[in-house]
Parts: sequence; C-alpha cells; structure tokens
Amino acid sequence: MALIVQKFGGTSVGTVERIQQVAEKVKKFRENGDDIVVVVSAMSGETNRLIELAKQASDEQPVPRELDVMLSTGEQVTIALLTMALIRRGVPAVSYTGNQVRILTDSAHNKARILQIDDQKLRADLKAGRVVVVAGFQGVDEHGNITTLGRGGSDTTGVALAAALKADECQIYTDVDGVYTTDPRVVPQAQRLEKITFEEMLEMASLGSKVLQIRSVEFAGKYNVPLRVLHSFKEGPGTLITLDEEESMEQPIISGIAFNRDEAKLTIRGVPDIPGVAFKILGPVSAANIEVDMIVQNVAHDNTTDFTFTVHRNDYQAAQQVLEDTARELGAREVIGDIKIAKVSIVGVGMRSHAGVASRMFEALAKENINIQMISTSEIKVSVVIEEKYLELAVRALHTAFELDAPARQGD
Amino acid sequence: MALIVQKFGGTSVGTVERIQQVAEKVKKFRENGDDIVVVVSAMSGETNRLIELAKQASDEQPVPRELDVMLSTGEQVTIALLTMALIRRGVPAVSYTGNQVRILTDSAHNKARILQIDDQKLRADLKAGRVVVVAGFQGVDEHGNITTLGRGGSDTTGVALAAALKADECQIYTDVDGVYTTDPRVVPQAQRLEKITFEEMLEMASLGSKVLQIRSVEFAGKYNVPLRVLHSFKEGPGTLITLDEEESMEQPIISGIAFNRDEAKLTIRGVPDIPGVAFKILGPVSAANIEVDMIVQNVAHDNTTDFTFTVHRNDYQAAQQVLEDTARELGAREVIGDIKIAKVSIVGVGMRSHAGVASRMFEALAKENINIQMISTSEIKVSVVIEEKYLELAVRALHTAFELDAPARQGD
Repeated sequence: MALIVQKFGGTSVGTVERIQQVAEKVKKFRENGDDIVVVVSAMSGETNRLIELAKQASDEQPVPRELDVMLSTGEQVTIALLTMALIRRGVPAVSYTGNQVRILTDSAHNKARILQIDDQKLRADLKAGRVVVVAGFQGVDEHGNITTLGRGGSDTTGVALAAALKADECQIYTDVDGVYTTDPRVVPQAQRLEKITFEEMLEMASLGSKVLQIRSVEFAGKYNVPLRVLHSFKEGPGTLITLDEEESMEQPIISGIAFNRDEAKLTIRGVPDIPGVAFKILGPVSAANIEVDMIVQNVAHDNTTDFTFTVHRNDYQAAQQVLEDTARELGAREVIGDIKIAKVSIVGVGMRSHAGVASRMFEALAKENINIQMISTSEIKVSVVIEEKYLELAVRALHTAFELDAPARQGD
Repeated sequence: MALIVQKFGGTSVGTVERIQQVAEKVKKFRENGDDIVVVVSAMSGETNRLIELAKQASDEQPVPRELDVMLSTGEQVTIALLTMALIRRGVPAVSYTGNQVRILTDSAHNKARILQIDDQKLRADLKAGRVVVVAGFQGVDEHGNITTLGRGGSDTTGVALAAALKADECQIYTDVDGVYTTDPRVVPQAQRLEKITFEEMLEMASLGSKVLQIRSVEFAGKYNVPLRVLHSFKEGPGTLITLDEEESMEQPIISGIAFNRDEAKLTIRGVPDIPGVAFKILGPVSAANIEVDMIVQNVAHDNTTDFTFTVHRNDYQAAQQVLEDTARELGAREVIGDIKIAKVSIVGVGMRSHAGVASRMFEALAKENINIQMISTSEIKVSVVIEEKYLELAVRALHTAFELDAPARQGD
C-alpha cells in the first residue's frame, strides 16, 4: 500500500465531466489499496476570468492581498466538485483549502513560498480511509491572510504535500503522456523517457519543455520526492523523475534535446577590452528589466572585443535601444542583432562521465552544414545558437547522432 | 462619529460597475467620519451558477459540507472586488472571509447558525481607519469547516456583526427605498414608513413582504440592533426598524397591510368532535413535510365539527391526498378545498392599545361586499382569507379605512 499524491491541472478539471473522469481514476487507485491525496487547480479559464474581474475593479494592478482572496476561490470550487464526485462514487473524501490544511506560506502575495505544511488533519483522514482533496496554488500566512503561490503553483503544492507526507510518489497529470527525448512534432522518432533525473528535467524545463513548472522540479529534487509525469486521461507509466543516476551499458549519454525559438541575439562590436565592460553593457539591460540568457564574449583583438548575448524576442527592441546608448557611451563600433535564431541544447547527466559529447554535437551539426553562432555549456548541457531555419534539421540530426531514435528504449 | 454596518445584496454587487457605485457610496460615509463595516453577498447569479455545478458533480443532493466550500467562494470574490474598488478610491480597506473574521457557527451545513463573532481584528482595523469588508452568508465551525447560513444569510451576518460591534445602525441596502404601508403596485397611495417595530416587521415579512429575511429581523430584535432598509442606488432615509413603540397623536393604529396569494385552503367536514382530533388531522400533514399556516376549527354541531387550514399552493395536492386518507379513517363526511384564495392582514402595534380594530377591518370589507372565509388573529395582526379575485379591492379598502393613504405620514 503506497501513499500517492496526485495533481490534476486546470485542463484535467476544466469541466464537470472531466472532474468525473478524474474521480473515476482516483477511485481505481483507491481500490488498489493506495492512500491518495489529490491536489487540483482551478477549472481552466477560471483564473483568467477572476483576473479580468479584478482588473475591472482596480485602477491598474489589483491589490495583491485582495487578488489572492479572489484567485484562491478558483481551486476552492474544484476541490468541492471533485469531493462531491468522489462521494457520489462511494469513495469517502474530504476537501481542504490551503488555509484549512494549513499550508503556511510567507506573506509575498501572488508569489508566496511554502514555509510549512501541517500534516495532522491529512494523516487522520487518510487513516480513516478518506481521499483528501487539497486546493493547489494557495496557502495562508502567519496572520491568516490568504496567499497564492503564483501560476503553476499547484505543481508546487503537490510536491510540497508529497514531501510533508513522505509520499511514495507525486504524480503530475498533464496533457502529455510523459517527458520525451525531444518534441515529437519535430522528431517523430522521439521516445518517451522511462526515467530522467531532476537535474536533467530542470535543464529540459528551462530550455523550453513546458511539461512541469521548474519550481516544482527544484522542490522535488531538494526533498527527493519521486515525481511522475502522466497523461490525465490515457493509461501509461509516464516518466519518472528521480535522483537516480544509474549507470549501465544502456545508459544513454544524452537524455533529451531541448530547443526554443523565443530568443533573439544582440552583439555590440568593438568595445574597449577593459575590466568592468561586461557590467557596463549588461547593467543597463538588467536595469530595464530585460532578462539575459546566453552570454558570450570573444577574446580581445586590437584591445577591443565583441560581446554577444540573447534575450527573449519580446525584449529585443527594448534591449537594442539600451545597447545603442551603451555603445555610444563606450565608443563601441556598432550594435548588430538577429531575431531569426534558435537555441538547441543536448541535456544528459551522462555527459559527466563521457568526454567528447560537445564535439560529437558539433560534428553532427557540421555534417548538416549548420553554422554555430554561439556556444554555452553547463555540467549536463551543451547549448548552441543557430540560424532559425535550421532548427528542425539540427534537432533531428542530433536525435539520430545521440542514438535517441531507437524504437524502444529503457531508462534503466 | 457613528459605527455603521452596511449590507449590500447580490443585485447591488451584481456587476463590477455596481460594485464601483457601492464603493463610491461607502467612501461618502467614510468621509462623513463614520466607521464602516460592509457586508456583501455573492454577485447575483453566482450562487445559482455554483449550485448548478454542484448538482452536475453530485448524484442527487450535493454533499452539504462540500456545497458550503463552493458557495462561500461567491462572497469571497465580492469582498475582494469591493476592497479593490475602495483602495482604488484612496479608501483604506481590507477584506475578510467568514473564517478570517472569525464568525463561529454550529456545524449545520447549508443552514448554520452564528454562535459567536470575534470582533478583535475588525476593531483593530476600524481603529486604524480601514473600512472592513466582510463576506456575508458564511462562517466556520469549531473544527474549521466552512459553513453557510442559508439563503438570505447575508442579512443575518450584517445584523450579527452590528450586534457584536455594538454598531449604531445596521443598514440593509436593497432594491426598494424602504418598507411601505402595503405593496405600491396594488395601492398607488401606499406610503413609505419612517419607522416600524421589529414585531411589525416580522409580521409583515412572514405575511409576504419580502424586503428582509425574517431571521435577520428576529436577530436584530433580539439584540436590539437598529435596522434600516434603504435603496442601494437612490438617496433617501429608508425605513428604520427599532424596538420603539412611541405613542403620539399621529401614531397610526395600523402600520401596514400585508397579503399573499400563495396559499390554498382545505376543509375536512363532519369529523367527530372528540379530543385529539386536531392532532389526528394535522399529524399526517406535518409528517408529509407540509407546513400549515392558518387553522380554524368551528364549534361542534351534532357532535361533529368542520376543520379548515391553509397550506402553500405547491403543497395543495399532496395535502389533499393526506386528508382524504384521514377522512376515511375518521369517518368524516367530506374533504373540500379551494386554491383561489388570498390572505390579507393588517399589522400594527397600535392594536394593543386600541379596541375595535378587527371590527373596523371587517366593516371595511363588508362595505365592499367581500366575504370573509377564515379569520386568525395575533396580538398585533388580524388576518382574513378571502376569495382571490377580491384581493386588490380588499387591500385598497383597508388602506383607506385605516387612513394610510394620507399624502404625507411621519412615523414619529
């Protein structure tokens, strides 16, 4: 008999019919003898509806404390509906808001962090044979103010509850049946991974694989909560995300290939190569609230250097303006930019113990005559920036080069 | 500087625009130097929407505890929106759910009764110059379960808060500008009352004047909370409901004329006039969950008697069936019934000190050739049942006979 925390997102509980399906699924687990805690989000669309109302009532930004009072009602409706649907099926169940559990958070409204979870009530209910249905995304601060964890916070609630209850597994139900070696829309031979490590998942997530909220993966990694990504309405084992880094003959070097087209590249050329120049360039960019992703500085040449970085495409115009001012100030030669770029990354803990992974990547791209514009590496990841039009070609070439196309693949 | 509790119902907060108007009104009171606690209902339509969802999720009746979890979100949204609208206007404000206040109730979900209100937080906020916005209709039981007070419970929340805070007045904002001597749609000369006593208001309310929830009037009377009925969006003094029974030359004997067409009459004729026969007749009716209003038993004649009572029209068929069975059992002569009846009542504390009020009523009806079918009296009320088609005529005749038509009337 296992203790399982199951999290269902807004789409999975988007209608009463879907809530009935979720209840059916929970019932099956219960009948297998597992203890179940279910975490649910607001029905899809509900949070946006509430934000719209709040904007109408407020002048500009809604008061954060009051916005949380409103937003928390979304999940509150879902927990009641799911509990009703469970009881209707003869499954004893009880619902709790974040306040009722009590999920204690700090007082940072709209983006609160969980400090502590009281597991007393939940354990008593589980012991009494009840399924416990908890509102995701919300908590309460020490003064009794309602708080929310920010978008995607329901995943975090699920993981935090699993950690507090020392659950055997935290299952995150989504609209995909697991984590893939890469996007199957780009590479039809992409494979569902049986297993992936927290670290790899974090890199995949931050590189554009939107299966899980980064924060919940971090949280799961920190408390070593086995996390499983599954499809809400299709059967299947999904993908297990764990600490494990088992080595074996079959262990692939690369777990997956992530990519995104959301970035744009900016280069400031011929800046004097003096100490502090990086800060002089990036300081004003960051002051303009623009986030910088990759940064590359070439070696100096004639006492000047070229400095390149990427930003989100939405920030491209703003960043370019900031950079033009900086260029004038520093007496740099010119500012050039390009939005038609794409970032492709190979991710895998296997890199740690295998040399030559990066060169194998570069070789595969070279074979396809794809020029690499920027390179950035971390311990378990190599990212390159290439021309956008080569994106699909690059991903497919790498998928084959790292032997991810194999028809069947076992992670352990 | 007064402390005022203001309650706004679902229609008054039915849209964000209306909530803005309410905020504007509250701001004016605040600028007059009054301390304000506002109680709000769910936006109109919201409670029904939630009940509909709950029915879809449940087989028959939604689980009461979970229904309360859902329903309480309606007011929770409104308190946040109104608080945002106040803060937008520069009025410091803070919202509280029933749980946050803490409005302690018993555990009778869907129809809980308020046991105790913690006024600590509210007093601190008022002292700090904040308007306090409280969710009506909801509370929390000793175990932390969310409860609701049942339909119309927001009025009760307002009165209970006013009692707990010893407020100078509890203002109930509605879609009428006060309590009238009778329904102005029937008698265009009907006058708004400046004042009315709790007792009179209770009789008026129970007789079909739907301005206030009976329960909130009882509550206000019990704790002697001055209650004022006002129009949400029109200026005017409304009607004050108090304990006062000031006597003066102008004091009218009758405060108002109430009526309803919701009842039907049933008579069982020729029942043996023996002890316990009333119970034998009404016991089965009450066992069938049918509420009985007026009851009249004529004096016995030839050892048999006639027994007449009224029920809600919706219960007429069911009551008739029950009665047929009883008639067979008791060997009664026959069961006859009539749904085309109306009840008209005159209400006023002045009756206590004035003789002949009833006969003045009967005289006025006789003058119009209206036959009286049943009569029932209480200390401050005389009710008669007449043929439905004479209802308007009867109300107008009585309104004139008791000098309620006067163009201007002061209650004190």
